[in-house]
Parts: sequence; C-alpha cells; structure tokens
Amino acid sequence: MVSGAPAPPGPGLSSAPALVALSEPAVTTPAVSKTLFEKIIDRELPATIVYEDELCLAFKDIHPCAPMHVLLVPKKPIVQLSQAAPEDQALLGHLMLTATKVAALEGLGEAYRLVINNGAAAGMSVSHLHLHLIGGRPLKWPPA
Amino acid sequence: MVSGAPAPPGPGLSSAPALVALSEPAVTTPAVSKTLFEKIIDRELPATIVYEDELCLAFKDIHPCAPMHVLLVPKKPIVQLSQAAPEDQALLGHLMLTATKVAALEGLGEAYRLVINNGAAAGMSVSHLHLHLIGGRPLKWPPA
Repeated sequence: MVSGAPAPPGPGLSSAPALVALSEPAVTTPAVSKTLFEKIIDRELPATIVYEDELCLAFKDIHPCAPMHVLLVPKKPIVQLSQAAPEDQALLGHLMLTATKVAALEGLGEAYRLVINNGAAAGMSVSHLHLHLIGGRPLKWPPA
Repeated sequence: MVSGAPAPPGPGLSSAPALVALSEPAVTTPAVSKTLFEKIIDRELPATIVYEDELCLAFKDIHPCAPMHVLLVPKKPIVQLSQAAPEDQALLGHLMLTATKVAALEGLGEAYRLVINNGAAAGMSVSHLHLHLIGGRPLKWPPA
C-alpha cells in the first residue's frame, strides 16, 4: 500500500532468535525486511514514478486525497524526520527544493501543500521518511 | 495575525505613485512593508518565541489548530518554498532538522506533523516561508 493511510505493523526485531547457544556469536544485525518504499525504489514493487534523481524518488500515492498527491522519498532509508542526523541536512534541503520541482512537473504551479508525518500517531504508516505533496484543488484548513 | 488562517491582503506595489514627473527617477524599488513574521523576527511585534538561532525563529501560532502549533520561519525572507533558490538548500535542511529539535523542546516527542503551504490557494496567509509544526493530539487524515 503506497498511501498515507494506516498500514499493518511493519517488521520488527521479533524474528531474532529467543534462545541462542552460548557458543554462537551475538545476533547484532537481524534481517529486517525492506519497507514498501525501498521496494519501489528498487523496482520490486510497481508505482507511477513522476521524478527520480540520484538522491530521491517521487511517485503517485495510490490513495490520493486530492487531484494531485505525490510522495517524495529519499533513497537513503531514514526512518522518519526525527531520526534524521545532522549529516542529512543537505539531503533534507534537496528534498525541499525537489518538492517544488515535482510540483511544477505535476502542474501544481504555485499552489500546493507539503506534509510530513512523524510517527504513527501523526499518521505515518511507512517507516521511511516521505513528503506528501498535495494540490489540484483548494486545500482546507486545519491540516489535521 | 500570526496564524495559518486567511489574512487580509498584504502590501503590494499599489502604493507606487501613479503619476511621476518625467524629471523624476523611475521608481524601481518601491517601499514594501515588512511581513508580520519579519516584524516578529525584529521584535517589533510580540510573539511567544520557543526557539531561536542565527538562521531561524520558532514561535507559537496565535490561532493554534492543535494543543501544540508552532511556526518555524527562516530569518531570510524567502517568500514561499517555490521561490527558494538552490543556494537555500542548506537553510532548508536546517529548517527540517530544527523542526525536530523544536518538536522535542515542545514535548511533541515522536508524534507531530510538519505542514508547509505554498501559495494562497493552499492556505498560505503570510508571504514569508513558514513551517507549521502541529501535534499534541492524534492527527486526522487527510491533511487538506
């Protein structure tokens, strides 16, 4: 599901073995499945891609909440904005500039809204930072 | 008014003189009033400031749409995101990182929404780029 709507719980660390023989090395890097967005980035899931460069990918939300609803994701798998590190500053700035570029490509012109949910309680459903780019009709307020 | 709600039309170029004697120099830089946010940055209007550094200022929205509703503005008077220039990339990244810092300061923890309106049709009411930082209750979807 490529949407802002709630998604089923993602993979956690619960697959790590509960019992490990003492002679075995500690399990420090349990296998974690790719998120839906990583699968789209890697072309393992289909999506209507509208923009791509070396740092990010933009594609249409399959549950749009407006005539135009695009998701913009960094290729680096940052879980959410609050987990971005100082060294991600240039990437985050690139995403902001790219959002405007994608809005223009999508014909949104000067009227669009950018929304970032941080955490499930804010509506985040995929654990990979994504910017919602919304437009194509007058946008209501408040946005939550 | 320090809010996302519609504001009265801002100052335009209409104050330029309609009739200018031919001997006068052309009016190329009409005086444009500061925006509300510039006045807050310059301490000419009061606001409940919650964070400041050399690049940006965060203060409470006077018409909050959630228990926590803070506006984060760059001190550089960028009109709106679509008018940001490539050289603003680092500043935009700084705003994103600072949003998370302000969310933590305000006790929003891991659950908040970041909203940027671009253009009046998207709900932008002050012509100075600003990020709405919203949280403190479960946030509804869609955000427009």
